[in-house]
Amino acid sequence: MREKRRIRMTLEYLGTNYAGWQWQNNVVTVQQVVEEALQKITSLQSRVTASGRTDAGVHALNQPAHADVETAMGDDEIMRAMNALLPDDVSVKEVTTVADDWSARFSAKDKTYRYIILNRERHSVFDHGSVWHIKNRLNIDAMRQAAGTFIGEHDFTSFRSAGCAAKNPVRSITKLDIEQDDDTILLTFTSNGFLKQMVRNIVGTLVEVGRGKIAPGDIAKILDKHDRTEAGVCAPPQGLCLMNVVYKDE
Amino acid sequence: MREKRRIRMTLEYLGTNYAGWQWQNNVVTVQQVVEEALQKITSLQSRVTASGRTDAGVHALNQPAHADVETAMGDDEIMRAMNALLPDDVSVKEVTTVADDWSARFSAKDKTYRYIILNRERHSVFDHGSVWHIKNRLNIDAMRQAAGTFIGEHDFTSFRSAGCAAKNPVRSITKLDIEQDDDTILLTFTSNGFLKQMVRNIVGTLVEVGRGKIAPGDIAKILDKHDRTEAGVCAPPQGLCLMNVVYKDE
Repeated sequence: MREKRRIRMTLEYLGTNYAGWQWQNNVVTVQQVVEEALQKITSLQSRVTASGRTDAGVHALNQPAHADVETAMGDDEIMRAMNALLPDDVSVKEVTTVADDWSARFSAKDKTYRYIILNRERHSVFDHGSVWHIKNRLNIDAMRQAAGTFIGEHDFTSFRSAGCAAKNPVRSITKLDIEQDDDTILLTFTSNGFLKQMVRNIVGTLVEVGRGKIAPGDIAKILDKHDRTEAGVCAPPQGLCLMNVVYKDE
Repeated sequence: MREKRRIRMTLEYLGTNYAGWQWQNNVVTVQQVVEEALQKITSLQSRVTASGRTDAGVHALNQPAHADVETAMGDDEIMRAMNALLPDDVSVKEVTTVADDWSARFSAKDKTYRYIILNRERHSVFDHGSVWHIKNRLNIDAMRQAAGTFIGEHDFTSFRSAGCAAKNPVRSITKLDIEQDDDTILLTFTSNGFLKQMVRNIVGTLVEVGRGKIAPGDIAKILDKHDRTEAGVCAPPQGLCLMNVVYKDE
């Protein structure tokens, strides 16, 4: 029996070949290929809404999304049928039926992103699509010291890119860990939300700290200026991956 | 001062976009791009000879190679200059000067290859270019039992592909480990040498054991028949990676 219901999908994707999450003309986006696959196997009654947009080249290990569908298929059947249709670089990890008012976007409580830097002279042939390769040795201690200043509730105007549509620039970062594993530097960010390119702008600034171009003690001043031009460069997209989203009902 | 000398290079490459190691007409090979890079920065006096050919789509974490060059550049300078010229998916990890009679091919004592199987229903968007994705659960215990039969010196005619130029089909496998890490199966092979597609033919046969199509006890019979049609399928190339080569002088 065909029934209309809302489903929650957990998506995994390699962003390399996509112009980001959101539909755009003349380029291929993740939202487009997911909607096309879902439309082929169900009667799709809505857009597919993700927890948030990811930029061109950014990856996702767990990107939650929801859509309203009309189908007689069960949740697992939908997942398997979608995976048979989706390209190799997009995959559905889970499908569950949720309440009609559950929103992947508005029900989110916090999100975790990870950024990977490969810090050695030689690039890696295996990871060049998923790391920012920086040849000169970064000062991790200085970066960690600077990172501490971002923790807590701040107005992140200095770290949001042009075109950010959010009315309120205040966000609360609960975690900003910097781990070093041989030549790899892993930066993990958890916040109740992120402004446009906020993670990449913070990473770019932390790298300038690691290069000695910005002092760790200057981060507080940069935050206070509420001016994007005060902070560092925007880190390239390929090092970034959406790791996890936690919801209010969880 | 320009000096003629033999260099040993350790190469790393992602085989996805290459028609294997060896020069061929009308397709791009790893040997070709390495020779082109070396020719641009030195006066290249020989072909670049690797420890052995790798097939189209096969990767290398450490592929030793040698060449005769005439240049005033030091070893590290050659490495850096090559890495500035090589495409993102080929890299030189080390350059050293070696004796004029040292051969990456003929001085090799043993080689280690690794094959990766992803054994779960859903493919991985991040690893699909470097694993063999097998949906149905394989019987690892049976595969390990079968693997033991390959250890030691055998005539591997049943496991060499058509076109293999080796005169002697006898090789000695000193290690064939099968490790399981969650949904990933890692097969590690060490031998004094491998015949054409020998690792992939053994992996394909072990997978048929894991699927219950070949009994572990039948491996000895398959070896004895000296007939390629008796063994299992050839595993796809993307799961294979040349890990390491050890030399007689080491």
